[in-house]
Amino acid sequence: CNYFSTYICFHFVNAFPLILLDLLPAKNGEEATMQFLLELVDILTNYVRKSFDRSTKVLDFHHPHQLLEGMEGFNLELSDQPESLEQILVDCRDTLKYGVRTGHPRFFNQLSTGLDIIGLAGEWLTSTANTNMFTYEIAPVFVLMEQLTLKKMREIIGWPSGEGDGIFSPGGAISNMYSVMIARYKYFPEVKAKGMSAAPRLVLFTSEHSHYSIKKAGAALGFGSENVVLLSTDERGRVIPADLEAKILDVKQKGYHPLFVNATAGSTVYGAFDPINEIADICEKYNMWLHVDGAWGGGLLMSRKHRHKFSGVERANSVTWNPHKMMGVPLQCSAILVREKGILAGCNSMCAGYLFQPDKQYDVSYDTGDKAIQCGRHVDIFKFWLMWKAKGTIGFEQHIDKCLDLSQYLYDKIRNREGYEMVFDGVPQHTNVCFWYIPPSLRGMEHNSKEYREKLHKVAPNIKAMMMESGTTMVGYQPQGQKVNFFRMVISNPAALQSDIDFLIDEIERLGRDL
Amino acid sequence: CNYFSTYICFHFVNAFPLILLDLLPAKNGEEATMQFLLELVDILTNYVRKSFDRSTKVLDFHHPHQLLEGMEGFNLELSDQPESLEQILVDCRDTLKYGVRTGHPRFFNQLSTGLDIIGLAGEWLTSTANTNMFTYEIAPVFVLMEQLTLKKMREIIGWPSGEGDGIFSPGGAISNMYSVMIARYKYFPEVKAKGMSAAPRLVLFTSEHSHYSIKKAGAALGFGSENVVLLSTDERGRVIPADLEAKILDVKQKGYHPLFVNATAGSTVYGAFDPINEIADICEKYNMWLHVDGAWGGGLLMSRKHRHKFSGVERANSVTWNPHKMMGVPLQCSAILVREKGILAGCNSMCAGYLFQPDKQYDVSYDTGDKAIQCGRHVDIFKFWLMWKAKGTIGFEQHIDKCLDLSQYLYDKIRNREGYEMVFDGVPQHTNVCFWYIPPSLRGMEHNSKEYREKLHKVAPNIKAMMMESGTTMVGYQPQGQKVNFFRMVISNPAALQSDIDFLIDEIERLGRDL
Repeated sequence: CNYFSTYICFHFVNAFPLILLDLLPAKNGEEATMQFLLELVDILTNYVRKSFDRSTKVLDFHHPHQLLEGMEGFNLELSDQPESLEQILVDCRDTLKYGVRTGHPRFFNQLSTGLDIIGLAGEWLTSTANTNMFTYEIAPVFVLMEQLTLKKMREIIGWPSGEGDGIFSPGGAISNMYSVMIARYKYFPEVKAKGMSAAPRLVLFTSEHSHYSIKKAGAALGFGSENVVLLSTDERGRVIPADLEAKILDVKQKGYHPLFVNATAGSTVYGAFDPINEIADICEKYNMWLHVDGAWGGGLLMSRKHRHKFSGVERANSVTWNPHKMMGVPLQCSAILVREKGILAGCNSMCAGYLFQPDKQYDVSYDTGDKAIQCGRHVDIFKFWLMWKAKGTIGFEQHIDKCLDLSQYLYDKIRNREGYEMVFDGVPQHTNVCFWYIPPSLRGMEHNSKEYREKLHKVAPNIKAMMMESGTTMVGYQPQGQKVNFFRMVISNPAALQSDIDFLIDEIERLGRDL
Repeated sequence: CNYFSTYICFHFVNAFPLILLDLLPAKNGEEATMQFLLELVDILTNYVRKSFDRSTKVLDFHHPHQLLEGMEGFNLELSDQPESLEQILVDCRDTLKYGVRTGHPRFFNQLSTGLDIIGLAGEWLTSTANTNMFTYEIAPVFVLMEQLTLKKMREIIGWPSGEGDGIFSPGGAISNMYSVMIARYKYFPEVKAKGMSAAPRLVLFTSEHSHYSIKKAGAALGFGSENVVLLSTDERGRVIPADLEAKILDVKQKGYHPLFVNATAGSTVYGAFDPINEIADICEKYNMWLHVDGAWGGGLLMSRKHRHKFSGVERANSVTWNPHKMMGVPLQCSAILVREKGILAGCNSMCAGYLFQPDKQYDVSYDTGDKAIQCGRHVDIFKFWLMWKAKGTIGFEQHIDKCLDLSQYLYDKIRNREGYEMVFDGVPQHTNVCFWYIPPSLRGMEHNSKEYREKLHKVAPNIKAMMMESGTTMVGYQPQGQKVNFFRMVISNPAALQSDIDFLIDEIERLGRDL
């Protein structure tokens, strides 16, 4: 018996003897169902336990062709005939075995890391309830939780009395897409019925460091990616307001219509916060929509110490904020928040009679589905609501502050350390610490030489590949503009400690020493 | 101790004494974490057990203001301070208590019903793994499962060797939106960069009975909802091909460009299947994109008995197919399938360097994120893959056939029964059975009179309201065109039996008798 099974293993001494047709809704299927679920929970809780155990690997890497060939009998192919429930449980074990432990204290690879136990509980409940957000009728509790949570988020943003609108969407890219749609609807409502030809040529502005979803939204929604103008940034990756104004004037001179500015609050690579107040001044001057993409930075709004980086956010017309990133909520959990009430419904409603009947017995203003671009919508709110209950606002604040402290620890550790070079100067605004590791063989070389740049460009990918092969830790890298590949360390993992940061640096040096 | 607790309750004789900070990642947090999760699982499995128990209610209805006021201490408000874990577990219990049991054998309210135990297990595992579909790097197993499953679905559609493209999206509306985007990209690729002004006025065609998401996509993507032309249908709700051709010619004569036809395979209200082959002939003749919206009907492709309703589907350029509807997969699980390989990436890729590095050590063609309009993407595949493993293709077929048999049972039961009138004649093509219940007080009245129509219009809402108050069963209703409110019965619930159909009819008569 393993750890968790000590509670229950006496019930499962034999091989699992059941088949699918023994489970509910089969008559007398209760016991078999409970046994099957309990056996599964045993697998899952073991995985949870191991995910937090530093003596386990972050991943056990295999190439696609290896997994496709079938590792030790793990067969991914689907067939006409059913498998036994025993095999299903083995499949579950194998699925976890060959995956990546994103909750591991040394997993730093993405903006979303960690495994929050309350969030996990919330997701387990959500999938057990298995309902849909489109009407109060079939999701009364979840619909109300969403409304109350969105209101709370708007209060934190600083909109008076938390008034406004909003919805949870399947991710930051879709939330950002919403912002562009409603900006267009606000200024050119006739586009909804008549299409883009009813408006002048509309232009969107966003930082060259911003998330690619703004450009994707521009392409998808019919603006065209060329009508998404990229703004220059300072050395730290923050939009230069004067560049914004110059580009707006340029666009106006060409006879186009400047519609929308996206200010990034926590850019993906540098963690930069654009100066919202100065951008808001410009938006007011030119009567433009201001969106703040706080997908990554949003969590900092909950920290009294760090929320000043969002100064001016209450002047935004819309805000993207992904609790599934910095706040450690399980995927997916992203909100688009809007200052003007009713505009989401105005923009998106099509009044489908089969779903949103006006003649229900309850107050149908709670049927919020028609303001979404989706029809069915997954319940993303519950895990977040439950975490908020369990942590309180102060618990989120503590988590955010701790992650930023850890990031400062890393920055202090490496900024003057031999073999490291920072990608930009100064303390990071978010938890993003961007740096090059320079192996000894490169340290004497002329930094501007082509050879040096080519060699340095390969260092991070090489170290990362070795990291994944050894499975000890994971951290991201990428080039940016003219800058060759560098590591982007981000910390959102609640399990990470200073010793894990030390481990990462040791590991980079161990793997990169002889490059 | 309740049923499930007999296995474990001896461990939880006291009130739950733990607090959040006792849980992982706390040092020595394992035991507390295991206890907390086990206690939660006890709540969830009890809910599962009750969901299948016909002696329990489908729901315990309360108005929004009642829930907001706090039912028996169930406080939805969020606060600054944390709650105890004991209270968290109470919150979980209350959340389920005041929700709707969508897995109950008598829940017929939506296209997605039922609670599949294997699918549930899949979701629990998915949330435990808590990863993201955008790269192979952090979701190796899930990315491969998605590829293999999409290929299998394309084979079932009938595309040679299952070649083509596809992706799982957050729902049918987004899948349909993808189809419009890629159709535009296929014929007018310059729109991606230059916007809608680079193309002539583009027109989309879809049935007046089709899902509203086509119109929403038209509005969102910059075509304009007026450029979504609605097609007339026959008495059964199927598109009339001659009407399509006439409307295409009309559009061409105006100088606009007919781009895209959506053929619905299983309409939301009538369950109608548009004649795909005849529509495909017209699309070929006018060089248009053919999309088949099989969000609801898709499951029938797996039935040898019923797949003839999809005749011609292999001629489609794209297909929406939601396993979370007719196939009983937990929400969310929707696929957009595309015949032409590479076009999704062509349409959507923006090549974000921080995420999709070309210099990884593995075959980066498995990094599929850039073909999505999302960035982060929830793992929707695993539960579906696991169900397919457990059921086999034949298991899905049996489920589909059984649901259609049940629907035929209902149809046969009421078509000549006193007090019922069918909304359209003939055996339903899908499980949708649309009917009016005529209370005795209305039976002698002139059917065309205004008074009769007004009274009949109120019957279904009244019965539905009483159903919800008594919590015994749930079924949908809506008007359609000139037709006043009628019941739309759909059967996708694997737990439903003939006796549940009998119960529904008895209940309608019990509640509606005196109206």
